[in-house]
Amino acid sequence: MAAASEDQIVSLGMAKGGMTLIDEAQAQALYAGMGAAREISGGSAANTLAGLAALGASCGFIGQVSDDALGTAFAHDIRTGGIAFDTPVRPGEPSTARCLIFVTPDGQRTMNTFLGASQFLPADALDDSVIADAQVLYLEGYLWDPEEPRRAMRRAIATARAAGRKVAFTLSDPFVIARHGDDFRALIDAGDIDILFANEHELAALTGLDDFHAGIAALAPKIPTLVVTRSEQGAYAVSQGEHANVAAAPVAHVLDTTGAGDLFAAGFLFGHVRGQALATCLTLGAVCAAEVISHYGARPEADLTALVAPFLA
Amino acid sequence: MAAASEDQIVSLGMAKGGMTLIDEAQAQALYAGMGAAREISGGSAANTLAGLAALGASCGFIGQVSDDALGTAFAHDIRTGGIAFDTPVRPGEPSTARCLIFVTPDGQRTMNTFLGASQFLPADALDDSVIADAQVLYLEGYLWDPEEPRRAMRRAIATARAAGRKVAFTLSDPFVIARHGDDFRALIDAGDIDILFANEHELAALTGLDDFHAGIAALAPKIPTLVVTRSEQGAYAVSQGEHANVAAAPVAHVLDTTGAGDLFAAGFLFGHVRGQALATCLTLGAVCAAEVISHYGARPEADLTALVAPFLA
Repeated sequence: MAAASEDQIVSLGMAKGGMTLIDEAQAQALYAGMGAAREISGGSAANTLAGLAALGASCGFIGQVSDDALGTAFAHDIRTGGIAFDTPVRPGEPSTARCLIFVTPDGQRTMNTFLGASQFLPADALDDSVIADAQVLYLEGYLWDPEEPRRAMRRAIATARAAGRKVAFTLSDPFVIARHGDDFRALIDAGDIDILFANEHELAALTGLDDFHAGIAALAPKIPTLVVTRSEQGAYAVSQGEHANVAAAPVAHVLDTTGAGDLFAAGFLFGHVRGQALATCLTLGAVCAAEVISHYGARPEADLTALVAPFLA
Repeated sequence: MAAASEDQIVSLGMAKGGMTLIDEAQAQALYAGMGAAREISGGSAANTLAGLAALGASCGFIGQVSDDALGTAFAHDIRTGGIAFDTPVRPGEPSTARCLIFVTPDGQRTMNTFLGASQFLPADALDDSVIADAQVLYLEGYLWDPEEPRRAMRRAIATARAAGRKVAFTLSDPFVIARHGDDFRALIDAGDIDILFANEHELAALTGLDDFHAGIAALAPKIPTLVVTRSEQGAYAVSQGEHANVAAAPVAHVLDTTGAGDLFAAGFLFGHVRGQALATCLTLGAVCAAEVISHYGARPEADLTALVAPFLA
């Protein structure tokens, strides 16, 4: 992660604000064009778990790292946050996933992801008992691209459903929907998703409807809890026919929007598993998102428990 | 680098605010007890050069890294800052130096350094022409401990002096002075140091005088330019009989004091090589130090050139 100018985004040919998949050679080339960087653990679902754990939820993470420096740091940061992480390390190539993130002065992040070892999470690395015991299984759309994690996620969904647990899913990115929208719509139609997180662009991509409220109206009846984030315009949720919305929480200075959606999901899910009202769940999401965009990096730095305490019933 | 509680500093047996040398096994053990961390390039003299380069000075760095992930990141960050770095990488063990930094809520940093490959910078890795061409050779006391870099620094001093260049030296740490004070005093007595940076504790350790002004009075006549920093009490300089002092620059919230002295030196040296008045040099130092303590990490993040512009003659 490094600061970047608008010119740099253009001259490196990147799609500002988006996430582009790159291979290891591209990652190295792009790194050479990057400013002084800091290495911080990330990963969409892992960021959400880091937020949930910081809020006091009991969490386990399933994901594939390699036996390299980035993998070691990732595992350290997950475990020191109190999150169980028992997926066996995968030795050798490819190396641990990394995302080269360019942050422009407006706080927008442009991401370039080498999926690396994460593409090879095998279904047999899943600990079914962890999934069956968890109140919620949370999955990220980003990993629907590679075949092995997709198969692992399908098995995890089946395990969770068989155990009567909830499945939460984040759509991650409009381009992931462009590639796998049929899969996602089939999961939704089959009733396999209990809580769906999307931003307004992903909602449009999934429903084919550009109008925000038309998209909500089309999708909400198919999902027990639908949560749609709209950046500085706040967020909207529909759950069992109940509608709620929340303004974005105030932020003195938006430094880096990386992880905003991930931490919104953390706050919302924390409220959800604690039985909070729908509007409260949205507020907790907004508070957690505001924290993470006020500094560099997609993991919380402030005491989230203290930040959300005034809003808990 | 990770956030830490006061209790953690005590329970891990660390000397709060200090720098302790550790070996690789200790580094691994301590890392296990550390919170979620971010990896950011550092190194005292390298931080100073990063500041100087950000201010627009032309710089070259000499130092030893290994062919590992930390070494690659260090070299990237130095070079992308526009600093020449041509010291050949040292393959194999020991790995690149690292410093495990625990930052308490008061912004104080407690450092634990594994010197790693940096201890094996050989004198013959020096590019004499780079040293002879530079207006100022800047050396850090931390690396006086291991024998090879000490020998390399002695040779660099001789090269700089033979070319009529200035030698700047930072004392780094009272414990370094406890071990090598005789060497440092001999260098000073021989007239080999033109610009000396110290904080008040290092001044006391070097002179044996607890009183700040007594220490200044004893040391200033032996050094063309003496600069002593006093944290939130500002800084004091004596150059060729002229005295100047400056208050600390205001900081809304001191998040992490790591690199304060390094960036103070950067600002001061930038003013010095540009022929600014002594008081201005101190002000530039204070402005750069204030920037670096307002965020995590010891490298500047804001536009230093813009920050110092109002103060330049």
